Amino acid sequence: MEYIYTHKVHYYETDRMGVTHHSNYIRFMEETRVAFMEEIGYGYERMEAEGVGSPVMGITCDYKTPTTFADPVEIHFNVLEMSPLKIRFGYTMMIKGKVACTATSLHCFLDSKTGRPIKYMERFAELEAVLKDYMK
Amino acid sequence: MEYIYTHKVHYYETDRMGVTHHSNYIRFMEETRVAFMEEIGYGYERMEAEGVGSPVMGITCDYKTPTTFADPVEIHFNVLEMSPLKIRFGYTMMIKGKVACTATSLHCFLDSKTGRPIKYMERFAELEAVLKDYMK
Amino acid sequence: MEYIYTHKVHYYETDRMGVTHHSNYIRFMEETRVAFMEEIGYGYERMEAEGVGSPVMGITCDYKTPTTFADPVEIHFNVLEMSPLKIRFGYTMMIKGKVACTATSLHCFLDSKTGRPIKYMERFAELEAVLKDYMK
Amino acid sequence: MEYIYTHKVHYYETDRMGVTHHSNYIRFMEETRVAFMEEIGYGYERMEAEGVGSPVMGITCDYKTPTTFADPVEIHFNVLEMSPLKIRFGYTMMIKGKVACTATSLHCFLDSKTGRPIKYMERFAELEAVLKDYMK
Repeated sequence: MEYIYTHKVHYYETDRMGVTHHSNYIRFMEETRVAFMEEIGYGYERMEAEGVGSPVMGITCDYKTPTTFADPVEIHFNVLEMSPLKIRFGYTMMIKGKVACTATSLHCFLDSKTGRPIKYMERFAELEAVLKDYMK
Repeated sequence: MEYIYTHKVHYYETDRMGVTHHSNYIRFMEETRVAFMEEIGYGYERMEAEGVGSPVMGITCDYKTPTTFADPVEIHFNVLEMSPLKIRFGYTMMIKGKVACTATSLHCFLDSKTGRPIKYMERFAELEAVLKDYMK
Repeated sequence: MEYIYTHKVHYYETDRMGVTHHSNYIRFMEETRVAFMEEIGYGYERMEAEGVGSPVMGITCDYKTPTTFADPVEIHFNVLEMSPLKIRFGYTMMIKGKVACTATSLHCFLDSKTGRPIKYMERFAELEAVLKDYMK
Repeated sequence: MEYIYTHKVHYYETDRMGVTHHSNYIRFMEETRVAFMEEIGYGYERMEAEGVGSPVMGITCDYKTPTTFADPVEIHFNVLEMSPLKIRFGYTMMIKGKVACTATSLHCFLDSKTGRPIKYMERFAELEAVLKDYMK
């Protein structure tokens, strides 16, 4: 299974070269994750109420085809790797049948009070199962 | 007196029209205020330690001459109006001898705990005096 | 008549105070205008094809109630003033029944080649009529 | 040799978690590259005049220590790899003696008219020599 999120490029996201500035794709990735977690029932509010934060530990992005204003960037989202403490997501961004970029992000889960890493996915068998469904 | 702050336009601040996107000037205004308050000894850290916040209540910006990547925008900063509860700042942004834009911002001061407006400037005769020096 | 556009606040649009950074509302205004012009049949691509640009000449924004991550900001859009050369739009941004901010933007129309102001609305009786329908 | 660029974090670059939003480091990387190329005499204007563009082909960023408003992020910049058609830069961002993040960016050079890759560094023995001085 994969989750698809669409971001229509805003004018203010373009740059002087006439294309979407490369830093913005990192933001599209965040939008996609947030929407996906909401979709599967583990949205930001729930995690915040549970005292859990999920910072970004690392990102990669390889740019293939430029996009520009008004382009509907279709972001195909998958789980690439899971361990008790970390999870890596994958993003394939498509524009008009071409790959705009491929990207990954690595995350851990922290106890918001202590700042210590926690095994969040092990708490919820259901969450772990859903994430496995989205593994590529 | 006036305070001058310079912002050199970054590539990621330009847009598809080849110029600095208009929303970014609002950010240059914040940079200027922050640098000015620091300069006169009432920087953000001090106010935060005192439990005082200073939100933006309103802004205006009139765009005259476009700027672009690498342009050194020279921001001439003044105090336009002061009352016990509010202060209005003025910004004249210059590029190569021309006015890029003229702008204003209105602020109040809040007790961070209660969220209530406070007469911050009256607490410090010295602050009030310095701000008056910068009135246009 | 009024046009309503909704912007759901992204995590990256919040700041250290926990609220939507004030500069972002200027971007929500652009999103709204772009969507409205598209809706009434005079989208960016059409105007670009006609060799017409429509820069922002000025903006104002008064902040009333803060918004934050995931808030659906409902932007009520109107035409405030029209003259042969200029048009002023109005924006009332609502969050959960409260006014988040009220804003305006002033625009002209330029011939992209010569850079000279043009009477764009007079070219299209239909456009002028639609804009009048949205006057407040 | 290494080149050092400092970016003082702006308030608008922080997020609701109280730290610099992770997407902004990608922009600090661009600022660093632009300043470095200017410093060694191959600034943006020169390359633009020569009809050469240098797009970002890929980026990676690993986040170690958060930074926040007013932090002076010290960016240590190096050349990691060079080939006739590509160059990879490295960035170690430091905050108060700790590593904030380590990052890389990969670039090619294009003829602005044809869009074809060019061997830009081979054109200028001097440029190639300087870049080698900054290899880690």
